[in-house]
Amino acid sequence: MNSQPLINNTIKKIVSLQVPHQQSIDAAVRRQSQLTKPEGALGKLEILAEFIAGVAAVPNPTLQRKTIMLAAADHGVAKEGVSAYPQEVTEQMVKNFLEGGAAINVLANSFKIDVKVIDAGINISSPIEGRLVQASLGKGTNNIALGYAMSYTKATDAIARGIEIFLEAHAENPTNIIGLGEMGIGNTTSAAALISAIGRLKPATVVGWGTGINPSQFNMKVAVIEQALDVNKDLIDDAHLMTSPEKGISFLAVLGGFEIGILTGIALGAAANRVPIVIDGVISGTAVLLASLVTPGIKNFTIPSHLSPEPGHKIVLEMLEHKEAIFDLQMRLGEGSGAALAINLCDVACQLLNNMSTFAEAAVSTRSPAIKTEEHK
Amino acid sequence: MNSQPLINNTIKKIVSLQVPHQQSIDAAVRRQSQLTKPEGALGKLEILAEFIAGVAAVPNPTLQRKTIMLAAADHGVAKEGVSAYPQEVTEQMVKNFLEGGAAINVLANSFKIDVKVIDAGINISSPIEGRLVQASLGKGTNNIALGYAMSYTKATDAIARGIEIFLEAHAENPTNIIGLGEMGIGNTTSAAALISAIGRLKPATVVGWGTGINPSQFNMKVAVIEQALDVNKDLIDDAHLMTSPEKGISFLAVLGGFEIGILTGIALGAAANRVPIVIDGVISGTAVLLASLVTPGIKNFTIPSHLSPEPGHKIVLEMLEHKEAIFDLQMRLGEGSGAALAINLCDVACQLLNNMSTFAEAAVSTRSPAIKTEEHK
Repeated sequence: MNSQPLINNTIKKIVSLQVPHQQSIDAAVRRQSQLTKPEGALGKLEILAEFIAGVAAVPNPTLQRKTIMLAAADHGVAKEGVSAYPQEVTEQMVKNFLEGGAAINVLANSFKIDVKVIDAGINISSPIEGRLVQASLGKGTNNIALGYAMSYTKATDAIARGIEIFLEAHAENPTNIIGLGEMGIGNTTSAAALISAIGRLKPATVVGWGTGINPSQFNMKVAVIEQALDVNKDLIDDAHLMTSPEKGISFLAVLGGFEIGILTGIALGAAANRVPIVIDGVISGTAVLLASLVTPGIKNFTIPSHLSPEPGHKIVLEMLEHKEAIFDLQMRLGEGSGAALAINLCDVACQLLNNMSTFAEAAVSTRSPAIKTEEHK
Repeated sequence: MNSQPLINNTIKKIVSLQVPHQQSIDAAVRRQSQLTKPEGALGKLEILAEFIAGVAAVPNPTLQRKTIMLAAADHGVAKEGVSAYPQEVTEQMVKNFLEGGAAINVLANSFKIDVKVIDAGINISSPIEGRLVQASLGKGTNNIALGYAMSYTKATDAIARGIEIFLEAHAENPTNIIGLGEMGIGNTTSAAALISAIGRLKPATVVGWGTGINPSQFNMKVAVIEQALDVNKDLIDDAHLMTSPEKGISFLAVLGGFEIGILTGIALGAAANRVPIVIDGVISGTAVLLASLVTPGIKNFTIPSHLSPEPGHKIVLEMLEHKEAIFDLQMRLGEGSGAALAINLCDVACQLLNNMSTFAEAAVSTRSPAIKTEEHK
């Protein structure tokens, strides 16, 4: 695989795009002001539709095809007991995704979203049957408490495979929006380590309760991440001295996960094709953070979804300069579940923009003249 | 119409129900804990499904039929210039609802929600064609800045008609959830006056920007409500001395709107039939507040949806003892638009409860034994 050239070409493509596409946004804003509602009365739904117009460079976007790419992988650090669940749950849940029994399946069915499940590097006991995208980079990363997660070459390959997966899927059946989902026992530890390292933050301020650990496990999880940052101190310092795209690849190599790297690549591939990217939780947010270290422009393509109780989630959204999440339902599941709900909101936001009548079409009076002159904002 | 007996019978029915139905909630909670996700990981979606189970007295509720009842009426107080839009917009928007061009139509189509549009008392210029539920109580209320909005008898009739409308619709085609929507130029003024009067609050702390008035209009709107409270001081003091159900009917008579009264009745009818009621914004919240003064038990049947920027919305939810809205998208449209989004969330919440696989079905390992013993909450 020619990973480095693929990444470089993708970056070149992203940088060449005019995003946000101001003309399309202006046209969408103009139409919003003519629809039968007070100006701005649909709040964030109006902002979502306008944002999508700006990414897609289409004044009236429709989300005909919606996709969640759900990458799964295992983490060597799971051996440290950082999760409430045993490692085999990664493989078991992937089978559950393929059989349609998980939360993401129910949400995706309800919202007419396609789900593509990707083996990014699961510690499988035997080959998994079903519609699984095969992209395994190994049977899990190295234990970051003892050293780096993967080689720089493997990190490059992970991102490149993510780009390829997006490009192939998009060529077969173009999608209008993409959500990032993940599964991997131990991956909130990897994400928290990355956020701590990149933001030079104390792990205790980033770490959360994951799938539901207890207080003593929480302290242990913090200690494991502190150890990972300490063991990998030189590599982290080196990564900080690098620039894009090496910086993103290096951080992935030191502390990342295979599914995180694949999602980073998927985000890059989507951006290069003007497909808006919906972040799910702290892990997919970290993948996008790495993508922003591969090419800074990526931020303009991404939509936050929910806010989870993981402290790192809020931090990573701030690092991505997203002022706030769209909603907070106290969800902490992953799988792309929050992204699915946000994609549904994006979908109706575009439907509202396209399908509502204008004041003229519906013969509805506009604002009283007295008000027009003295606008309240 | 025998309004008073109908209201009394409805109250009797509501009081006789065991809501929340603890057995059904317990069964739903038990199933949640067996589904392939960490406990509580679906956050508010789990709470919604359990709440609906408790109202419907069904351990595994499904929302096969979802309905928004959208009541429209005019307000004499619109003459005081409290709205950014002229009064004829009420009638024009109702025609827009019937023709499918409004935001609520787009949302309802997308979420497969039926919308019933009700003429509760619009100042129509000529009969309105189309599938409109005819329940007009007049061509708008009296101007509350000059006296009471409607007679006590008319307020009783409004609530009774709301009950009838629900019962007829539900008999024809039973619904599993109901959202309250409204349209009426001037109705945020009526709602703010009711909240101020019932909560003995200063109007300036309750009033918002409505459809988008300017600062001088805002001050005028506050002054108009202060005048309404002053002009109607004796009637308001009398209402405070009453008990349920007269208290609710009296406040409606003094400061209410016809659409508010109809929605109060619809909420009562729905509760009597174990149908969960989704509040939209400040106006439908006020209708439910009145319903809670007709019979206190109504609070156990209601689900908040979004939080709008109207200060009165947060206040009315607090008065209803709803700790918080489900989401805040900065919407301020009315029509039941926020309720539609919440109904969609309730729908997927129930789908998740019913359609996800259990750990046993999917052969997924449960939590590591060490964690089970020392639970973090």
